[in-house]
Amino acid sequence: MNNFSYKNATQIHFGQGQIDKIREEIPAGSRVLITYGGGSIKKNGVLDQVHAALRGFTTFEFGGIEPNPHFETLVKAAELVKKESISFILAVGGGSVIDGTKFIAAAALYPNDPWEIIQTYGAKVTQAVPFGSVLTLAATGSEMNNGAVITRAATQDKLFFFSDHVYPQFSVLDPATTYSLPPRQTGNGVVDSFVHVVEQYVTYPVNAKVQDRFAESLLLNLLEDGPKALENPSDYDVRANLMWTATMALNGLIATGVPADWATHMIGQEITGLYGLDHGQTLAVVLPVVWQYKKAQKREKLLQYATRIWRLTEGDEDARIEAAIEHTRQFFERMGVKTRLRDYNLDKSIITAVVQKLEAHSHVKLGEHADITPADVAHILELAL
Amino acid sequence: MNNFSYKNATQIHFGQGQIDKIREEIPAGSRVLITYGGGSIKKNGVLDQVHAALRGFTTFEFGGIEPNPHFETLVKAAELVKKESISFILAVGGGSVIDGTKFIAAAALYPNDPWEIIQTYGAKVTQAVPFGSVLTLAATGSEMNNGAVITRAATQDKLFFFSDHVYPQFSVLDPATTYSLPPRQTGNGVVDSFVHVVEQYVTYPVNAKVQDRFAESLLLNLLEDGPKALENPSDYDVRANLMWTATMALNGLIATGVPADWATHMIGQEITGLYGLDHGQTLAVVLPVVWQYKKAQKREKLLQYATRIWRLTEGDEDARIEAAIEHTRQFFERMGVKTRLRDYNLDKSIITAVVQKLEAHSHVKLGEHADITPADVAHILELAL
Repeated sequence: MNNFSYKNATQIHFGQGQIDKIREEIPAGSRVLITYGGGSIKKNGVLDQVHAALRGFTTFEFGGIEPNPHFETLVKAAELVKKESISFILAVGGGSVIDGTKFIAAAALYPNDPWEIIQTYGAKVTQAVPFGSVLTLAATGSEMNNGAVITRAATQDKLFFFSDHVYPQFSVLDPATTYSLPPRQTGNGVVDSFVHVVEQYVTYPVNAKVQDRFAESLLLNLLEDGPKALENPSDYDVRANLMWTATMALNGLIATGVPADWATHMIGQEITGLYGLDHGQTLAVVLPVVWQYKKAQKREKLLQYATRIWRLTEGDEDARIEAAIEHTRQFFERMGVKTRLRDYNLDKSIITAVVQKLEAHSHVKLGEHADITPADVAHILELAL
Repeated sequence: MNNFSYKNATQIHFGQGQIDKIREEIPAGSRVLITYGGGSIKKNGVLDQVHAALRGFTTFEFGGIEPNPHFETLVKAAELVKKESISFILAVGGGSVIDGTKFIAAAALYPNDPWEIIQTYGAKVTQAVPFGSVLTLAATGSEMNNGAVITRAATQDKLFFFSDHVYPQFSVLDPATTYSLPPRQTGNGVVDSFVHVVEQYVTYPVNAKVQDRFAESLLLNLLEDGPKALENPSDYDVRANLMWTATMALNGLIATGVPADWATHMIGQEITGLYGLDHGQTLAVVLPVVWQYKKAQKREKLLQYATRIWRLTEGDEDARIEAAIEHTRQFFERMGVKTRLRDYNLDKSIITAVVQKLEAHSHVKLGEHADITPADVAHILELAL
């Protein structure tokens, strides 16, 4: 096991009816900005529950935060925070709304051009407006971590930042808020969580048994309950297990003391930035081919994954690895997420553009060994046509 | 899954050489009291490492905290904290030293008779002197939780208290500090961690997949690496896996949203209080017979435990449950911890005294259904002779 430091102070309130808890969590007298996305929280009653819990607070609203939230939108919200002396922000939505709110919270107190926050990956953030979240989609883990991914629409740049100042103070996880999700979002969420786990697990072994087995636990949960959520969207236990699994997939716990890959995310983000595919769609396309391309380096962990997740214990090792990759691809398809570029009407012509964007973003070497070059990315994407 | 609220803000620094980090964690200018136990940290060099890291701080020492730390000892340390205006406490040791330090930290700022802290199970604690820990024994999880068990030697009362004010600010977990442990402490630590997990897992099912699989992960780690630690005490990876497993076993994470038993701990604590057995020894004696006695109520989870931990999938269900209990007992014995009262020269005559203590401590109904009466405890202990 590698050395590590770990701390995560986000307060979680999990379960049906827990939205009421936001009243105790937000300091009395706060001027609260409620941030949200396309308005589904108005239809499914979640915004009403939030307002009921916030009776007596002075509240403002900022809606319209996009999937892959736009820098251009978020700076407007940051202006509103300053203008109205907002002292607490409440993000109500999925990962995009929470990611966007992290940026708003940091940008509102940032002394220079807020794009600098992204350009420096968050290193210069020294403060942020305190915020909490009401999660309505199990996927990104943003509800219990310190990272965010922001897109500059004008330049098609999709980039992340991290800062310990943007951990949510609290997050409410009510699985019932996810009953009304369209299947596409449920499927994307499961794929996203799955890929979060394997980016921290299918690397090389360092004999970290807690982390490996916790990762495997989360994968098995997703395999079991992901399809059930598509079949029966209002099964509370299924939604609850998926929600807590997604949070655990990216709250830093399974990252402790182990190497991490993230090549799939880096490549996928460029595809979303350039061509607008859903985040989960890009991951479903890229992950299997990253594994195919790097199977020699990932051999031991791929075999462990094949054995412990897919129960592939018989026969030739190479065949087991191939089968595990193929099972993974089939699982993504079963979740309704296509796994080939052609499924999204993309072809070979995208490769140069993706590679150029990666180079422009200084991600010239990807993967747990930092050995995936731009030329490798071109080869990887050729496998994904 | 049941509703839950969860937060754990303890900063962990894990790995070899991490003791240096205490320098950054303790506020500059602090007057630091170092608390410890019987002095093994002087022999194995850990105290020297701590002093090296604290160069420039004003430090005091309070040693001699017993296993099952005594109220009578700890109040003296609390007086020292007051007299010397100590502003930070650093516990260096295992669970007893950290538990004791939690009590010292709370008692030093408590306005009334500090025994009241225990009598009210911590409910009246409103503040505590900030403290951190350097862990030297993988067992209790005290390094990342808010509980402590204290013994009043004069009356043979062993009781717990909880308070969110006694989470360690930070804990340093350096597996190398555990190389020099005697086998008895290594064995007790593994048994203690194992029983912590199953007290939160072998109850009744609530379809909490993260919690169940995380619990199973920790049990498998203990089964695999516990015996290895006895065979090769200086294997870093083995010690590291045991240490992180023990922390995860009782930091609140696997307790989220599931029922808990704790009957074994409650009964075991009375046996230690009265007869001085090691904590791990009492657990190894009591757990198998609690399961035997309650196997009807625990049936589904015992079968899950039999299948997933011991791979018992063939034949009659009752036989599988019996075999799983027997395997558990054998594992404790393999860790060098005996599992019968007679192994500790105790017989039937202890039963009345244990039951009376439980009644005096108002633990009249134990277990996840709160249905284990004093008469049941007498029957349970008869199975343990």
